[in-house]
Amino acid sequence: MAEVDQKALLQFLLRMGDNTLVLGHRVSEWCGHSPILEEDIALANTALDLIGQTQLWLGYAAEVQGEGKSADDLAFLRDAWDFRNVLLTELPNGDFGQTMMRQFLFDAFQSVILARLLKSSDTTVSEIAAKAIKEVAYHVERSADTVVGLGDGTEESHSRMQAALDYLYPYVGEMFLSDDVDAAMAAAGVCPDPTTLREEYDALVSKVMANATLAIPANAYTHKGGRTGYMHTEHLGHLLTSMQWLQRAYPGCEW
Amino acid sequence: MAEVDQKALLQFLLRMGDNTLVLGHRVSEWCGHSPILEEDIALANTALDLIGQTQLWLGYAAEVQGEGKSADDLAFLRDAWDFRNVLLTELPNGDFGQTMMRQFLFDAFQSVILARLLKSSDTTVSEIAAKAIKEVAYHVERSADTVVGLGDGTEESHSRMQAALDYLYPYVGEMFLSDDVDAAMAAAGVCPDPTTLREEYDALVSKVMANATLAIPANAYTHKGGRTGYMHTEHLGHLLTSMQWLQRAYPGCEW
Repeated sequence: MAEVDQKALLQFLLRMGDNTLVLGHRVSEWCGHSPILEEDIALANTALDLIGQTQLWLGYAAEVQGEGKSADDLAFLRDAWDFRNVLLTELPNGDFGQTMMRQFLFDAFQSVILARLLKSSDTTVSEIAAKAIKEVAYHVERSADTVVGLGDGTEESHSRMQAALDYLYPYVGEMFLSDDVDAAMAAAGVCPDPTTLREEYDALVSKVMANATLAIPANAYTHKGGRTGYMHTEHLGHLLTSMQWLQRAYPGCEW
Repeated sequence: MAEVDQKALLQFLLRMGDNTLVLGHRVSEWCGHSPILEEDIALANTALDLIGQTQLWLGYAAEVQGEGKSADDLAFLRDAWDFRNVLLTELPNGDFGQTMMRQFLFDAFQSVILARLLKSSDTTVSEIAAKAIKEVAYHVERSADTVVGLGDGTEESHSRMQAALDYLYPYVGEMFLSDDVDAAMAAAGVCPDPTTLREEYDALVSKVMANATLAIPANAYTHKGGRTGYMHTEHLGHLLTSMQWLQRAYPGCEW
């Protein structure tokens, strides 16, 4: 087992934590705006779970970074170019169907990667995964059910879900890209290379989309740049102005 | 002529400057999104004029305040509760028609008040008014023409403009409210009491709405709180997170 490159480990942890942070904030935007009360509470709970996982990933990231920062510092005081989330997580909510489609496409990925991380050579990573996977098992069941219910629903809900899948699917590929950071994590046994997760993911997603009577776009383009920090969509900057407002306007504010 | 209460003068100047600042930022949100190129350029120019007027109003406000601040400090480092703009200016853009209706309802007010301010006992105020009124004369002509063109246009454009007027009209009344600040300004000859401007405003707006075949809502409620700082709509805070982002994230940044 190779010694773990701490810079690569930090990048890996930021990728995990920024995914849950950014998606968690996006989902929280639904609070008070959902179509029915139960969905409002369910989405708020999902957002809370994601932010709770963020606390663990970014807390460990800050520790590995060794600059005396906290998870909060990483969440609220970095600028867009320092974020390492996949672009999928920063895309706008759209309608409820689009939000749930995005959630399922991400939950499916999380369920696959967290199962592998249970056996990570890094015990902190495996402990975080063990905690998160219980929540994600529920998330993916719920988002899959909603995708099936709306996809195989009325004519309008079907066409909205197909439009959501067509819009979002080109952002799926980024989750399975691989670079030097991934190679280092795989070599050290921290996390398997993402490319090796695609088959299991595709099997899960194909089954759900078939039940939802939705067609997965063929030969989809792969929008990328988020997880490497090369380029984010315009949406991330706007999300950060809201999410970081308090700590930007009142630096060091505590309560 | 009574001596001018400097605290009241400051409030008056903030009201003038925050109106143009907040509306200017709102209008700038259209940049690159307008229905046709000419409108895109026209809206960007309107936004620039409003921000230019803001520079003058808030520059003078900072001078009167006497705390060594600049117009930029007032624009970018105050929080929502310190803003004194009328609620009308912070309302969302909606569609192009709603934006132009909001613009006309504000331009009409500006054209009336600036004409009076030409004779202000405060020479700085009268000089700002003299500069601004040339721009506003063009703004109000253009926004009135657009309101008439869309109001007396197709069935769809008419119904959208009527919906915009119905939505916005309850925010008109706030521009003509009067309090101790206004009384002090009137007593010192700086600015006439806003209540005395309503008749001229109503004559102008009635004429344009008649040409636009639009019905002014009867007995409209008066949403208020912006110009006194008592309460803003939820929209102002979100607007400020975008507008103030740079100075909040990079305090003291210059270029």
